Amino acid sequence: MLPPHVEDDHFARTPLIARPLPLPRRAAARLHPLPLLVAAAAFATYYHLLVAPAPSYYHSLFLSLGSNETAAAHLRALTARPHLAGTEANALAADHVVSTLSSLCSFPTRVTPYSVLLSYPAHRSLSLSAPGRAATAFALVQDAYAGDPYAAASAEAVPTFLAYAASGSAAAEAVYANYGRAEDYAYLASRGVNVTGKVAVARYGEVFRGDKVKNARVAGAAAALIYTDFKDYTAPGKAFPDGPWMPPTGVQVGSAFKGVGDPTTPMWASSEGCERVSIAEAMATDDMPGIPALPVELLDTLLNVIAVIEGKEEPDRYVILGNHRDAWTFGAADPSSGTAALLELAQRFSKLQSKGWRPRRTIILCNWDAEEYGLIGSTEWVEENRAILTSRTVAYLNVDIGVCNSGLDVLATPQLDELLKQASKQVQNPDNGTESLYDMWMASDSSLIGRLGSGGSDHFAFVQHIGIPSVSMSVGSDYAVYHSLYDDFTWMEKYGDPMFRRHVAVASMWGLLALRLSDDEILPFNYGSYVAELEKGAVGINKSVLGMPVSLSPLQKSIKEFDKAVLKVDSELKALQTWNVWSPWRNNPLRVRDLNDRLMMTERAFTEREGQSGRPWRKHMIYGPSLHNDYGAEVYPGVDDAIQTAKRTNTSLSWQSVQHEIHRIARVISQAALVLSGGLT
Amino acid sequence: MLPPHVEDDHFARTPLIARPLPLPRRAAARLHPLPLLVAAAAFATYYHLLVAPAPSYYHSLFLSLGSNETAAAHLRALTARPHLAGTEANALAADHVVSTLSSLCSFPTRVTPYSVLLSYPAHRSLSLSAPGRAATAFALVQDAYAGDPYAAASAEAVPTFLAYAASGSAAAEAVYANYGRAEDYAYLASRGVNVTGKVAVARYGEVFRGDKVKNARVAGAAAALIYTDFKDYTAPGKAFPDGPWMPPTGVQVGSAFKGVGDPTTPMWASSEGCERVSIAEAMATDDMPGIPALPVELLDTLLNVIAVIEGKEEPDRYVILGNHRDAWTFGAADPSSGTAALLELAQRFSKLQSKGWRPRRTIILCNWDAEEYGLIGSTEWVEENRAILTSRTVAYLNVDIGVCNSGLDVLATPQLDELLKQASKQVQNPDNGTESLYDMWMASDSSLIGRLGSGGSDHFAFVQHIGIPSVSMSVGSDYAVYHSLYDDFTWMEKYGDPMFRRHVAVASMWGLLALRLSDDEILPFNYGSYVAELEKGAVGINKSVLGMPVSLSPLQKSIKEFDKAVLKVDSELKALQTWNVWSPWRNNPLRVRDLNDRLMMTERAFTEREGQSGRPWRKHMIYGPSLHNDYGAEVYPGVDDAIQTAKRTNTSLSWQSVQHEIHRIARVISQAALVLSGGLT
Repeated sequence: MLPPHVEDDHFARTPLIARPLPLPRRAAARLHPLPLLVAAAAFATYYHLLVAPAPSYYHSLFLSLGSNETAAAHLRALTARPHLAGTEANALAADHVVSTLSSLCSFPTRVTPYSVLLSYPAHRSLSLSAPGRAATAFALVQDAYAGDPYAAASAEAVPTFLAYAASGSAAAEAVYANYGRAEDYAYLASRGVNVTGKVAVARYGEVFRGDKVKNARVAGAAAALIYTDFKDYTAPGKAFPDGPWMPPTGVQVGSAFKGVGDPTTPMWASSEGCERVSIAEAMATDDMPGIPALPVELLDTLLNVIAVIEGKEEPDRYVILGNHRDAWTFGAADPSSGTAALLELAQRFSKLQSKGWRPRRTIILCNWDAEEYGLIGSTEWVEENRAILTSRTVAYLNVDIGVCNSGLDVLATPQLDELLKQASKQVQNPDNGTESLYDMWMASDSSLIGRLGSGGSDHFAFVQHIGIPSVSMSVGSDYAVYHSLYDDFTWMEKYGDPMFRRHVAVASMWGLLALRLSDDEILPFNYGSYVAELEKGAVGINKSVLGMPVSLSPLQKSIKEFDKAVLKVDSELKALQTWNVWSPWRNNPLRVRDLNDRLMMTERAFTEREGQSGRPWRKHMIYGPSLHNDYGAEVYPGVDDAIQTAKRTNTSLSWQSVQHEIHRIARVISQAALVLSGGLT
Repeated sequence: MLPPHVEDDHFARTPLIARPLPLPRRAAARLHPLPLLVAAAAFATYYHLLVAPAPSYYHSLFLSLGSNETAAAHLRALTARPHLAGTEANALAADHVVSTLSSLCSFPTRVTPYSVLLSYPAHRSLSLSAPGRAATAFALVQDAYAGDPYAAASAEAVPTFLAYAASGSAAAEAVYANYGRAEDYAYLASRGVNVTGKVAVARYGEVFRGDKVKNARVAGAAAALIYTDFKDYTAPGKAFPDGPWMPPTGVQVGSAFKGVGDPTTPMWASSEGCERVSIAEAMATDDMPGIPALPVELLDTLLNVIAVIEGKEEPDRYVILGNHRDAWTFGAADPSSGTAALLELAQRFSKLQSKGWRPRRTIILCNWDAEEYGLIGSTEWVEENRAILTSRTVAYLNVDIGVCNSGLDVLATPQLDELLKQASKQVQNPDNGTESLYDMWMASDSSLIGRLGSGGSDHFAFVQHIGIPSVSMSVGSDYAVYHSLYDDFTWMEKYGDPMFRRHVAVASMWGLLALRLSDDEILPFNYGSYVAELEKGAVGINKSVLGMPVSLSPLQKSIKEFDKAVLKVDSELKALQTWNVWSPWRNNPLRVRDLNDRLMMTERAFTEREGQSGRPWRKHMIYGPSLHNDYGAEVYPGVDDAIQTAKRTNTSLSWQSVQHEIHRIARVISQAALVLSGGLT
């Protein structure tokens, strides 16, 4: 299915716009000079259409150029040392990204720095005591293993801690709180267990660690501890280095901040000379853990790396690929496998450039910093460029962990579902050369595309703050040594992706999506999936409010309007399939742009400027994080929150709030229907 | 300067795209068939360019077609009866607008209804008493005069009242409050005059009547009365019908609502089945007068009329002309002179259509309803179509009162200043045929272009809610019989515009702006004026905060960025002036669109999604209403409000708020700079 690998650079020497063939002299002499000139110009253009390879040629070429050796070499370079945001090692990793991209054919690359509030641990101690017994102190160290090639570099790793937890100490009775979810604390309360003033102990899993700490604080705990449960992370198989599972002293480090972006610039960018709230004020918000876990704060500088391949025909339309670089430790899976894939695909793009390819639209490669602390690098950049990104961005394609296991895990806004399936059919399954990624994906447990309401990675600002159609994906989803000292090159080479073919697969999928979105004349968006999703969400609400004084008819009406708009666009697209060089569409790029702008701006219309109730930074009304788990994505988050409150309080006012939230989502869906159909009332 | 009036319709029979001349047969036979076909197609297009009149031909033709008879006839038809929003007479006026537009060449016209909260007076009484004397009852009637041709129709006029004032009664001592401004009440307080429980009496003038009532309520008054002062409105000359001034019993009716749009749908559109707050809740907000003035409320239906001339090359770009139709009484000046001008210019557009003209971009004519109650018709429509209007609208051109006096009164967002001057040079001064409107304008007191922060007319939602470049203008600004029974056709014919040439002048100016904005390949926006305005505003702030702990450097930095963006665009525009049919720009409409989109979207970037502090519906950060006068426009309204508060309270926190507001405007200016320059950080 793939074309033969093209090694010679014959095309690179062919000028992009060929010179017209001269007309026979006698014929020319008899023509009126004006049409002759016009003919020459028109023929030059047309000749170009005939001889320049079609975008699909370059897309196949891209797939054939994948190199696992390149991916592996980048991963090795990126993971030589732990590279936490704000450290010298992470600045060196940025140098690697910049120098790789700058060495390519034509990728103007720059670094955008932001000064932001990061937190690092100063003093930490933990001891367990019981009446009449001596206290046992915990070492709080992740042990090295015999023969570890990274033993020396491990000393640079940040000690285990939870970023942004408050400074302080607590000595109190411990209370076991299971996963530390809201329902776990409700259970404790129902059994008469008082958490006030105690140390809450919860195990990792089920919900975001920031929610575990917040729930502990809300329950009145004086401090919180989260541990990596042996049963979940080690017992299922052999521990690293003898197997992929977590060694006994392994700890998942991470941030306990529930917000995103620099905490000192809550609604705006950390640009030079910008307004800032004080650190004390930033640390006192409800999104902060607020109870002890040993940190110290610093205003540190992060470095995003941005490289731009300017579009030839629509330079003012952006397809943005993003991945973060900073890691809690070595970060071989999280995120360096994604960074390696980004660099490997950039090298392939560079080869396409040398063979004459220029994308129709602009492609931007972003390598974010300080994702681990709260998606800070991507958030500040989106905030700083909000207005222009809103006008121009076609799609954002995120890869955080590139590879950690087998399988394909995909989250996306629904208009991209169809494109994702098409692209995966063109990429080989890295674990089985006889089938496509699509075959493997559809046969797996993760064949359903998840949604992008959650705050799990750098897609968040793009989707939640400005309404950009987005994808976030990885090969594999879970792995035991996540955020521990053992997420290193050795682990990846031995267990995660021994052949580095999975790295190539994620780069192929990622790059092919970018190529389609940047080269296709009509944007490959299908809003049919969105209608199904909106309806599914309505069914969910309907079940939740059964028998309550709530009407779903405004929502149902708006979904019908949106469905009608989708049908209208579908019929316009069908009319376009009869295109040829003489059709009015061919000579009317503005008409094509009109349709594309509608396809692009429809997702924007799902945002409301005032934002989700009580969470003004989050503007998206269809998807959002679940109130009690930042990892979980909800459809209609505002309605869901209001229903939860109404079920708890069951007041007439609380059910009116549910109705209000239903009206709010109905309004954005109606706005989206007008944008998609291109009609005013 | 104007071309001769073209009466025959020769051009109407000329097909828009002429058939290409056949090539000589022998030459054709010797050509390769492909270039021949291309040549034929290209020649057809090029031939069209040569023979189809240039837009400027149509623009001159438009100016030559002005008809004062047509304008007068429309005004007479529109003002036959008082036509208050929600009345049968106003529905008949809508019929006149619809039937006029529908009868034209190609103006697909539709009516968009909204159910909204309007208020009408039920019982009204007012009497004055003094100790030991019998009470004197006021008639509360505007007297008819002998020989009034509209005497019968006058009986239909709404009794004098203030819309949305609360129901109730008050019997108390009267306190004279001058103009009823905040400073007037401050003066009363300083002289020990207690207004609590009293009836506040204020005269019209200086500030919006809604502010007069609100200030009375805030001062503790039980009720408010506003009167038309003889000294200001009658004494300067002879009263109507013997002169243009207000008769002794004349009263300025009006709305006392400080908000905009339907009070029962405060942040969204009154679409069918929409969410509504209760009338009680709507009447209890701080924007409502809240103290008695005799109203009764009704949920009534308003009718906007919308007509669309679809653009040929960029149908998805909108130039919107708007004027309201509803009047407190006959409304000859306010607003029917504007409506008559709209219809007269539509008839001229129709003649251009019959001669082959089709605008490059879509022109939309809007005839709003219920403007008088609080800009309701335009506001609901903007809210309902917010997302698509934001993506597509090039400019909004408002005319409320079209004609009421001599002179030209113009408000605009600054990027339109230059175009306004250019257009006025092409229009004759209606009062002096030997000079242009520009000459007269520049020699007058109103030669400075005002700004659009205020809530005076239907531009408000376009500017304040979604950031559309806008104009609002009239021939003449003040007249004594404003909002009284005497604003009728007789008054206009005798005093306002006896020759109806001023009607033609305003229609010419309005139409020419629309033609330039819809036909010019590059949008005629000049952001240089904006830089000057931003700097002037900064100088104003600097004076206000002298010696206070406030830094203007973030603002100054952002203005520098914006200035740099303006220079970049200027140099791009200069490069474009060397255009010819062979230049890459000619064959690259997407490149032109890129530049136009930047020019169009820059104004949008001056809005902040969270809105002005405490006024979330108003998103524009550069212009806004003054806090104590909805008629007054402020530069940097958020900063101005914060400074007023800080000067009053002089706390460290209040000066921090000033600094915060300075940062907010600096941020939008930086966003606008990125949009205008087309660059990301």
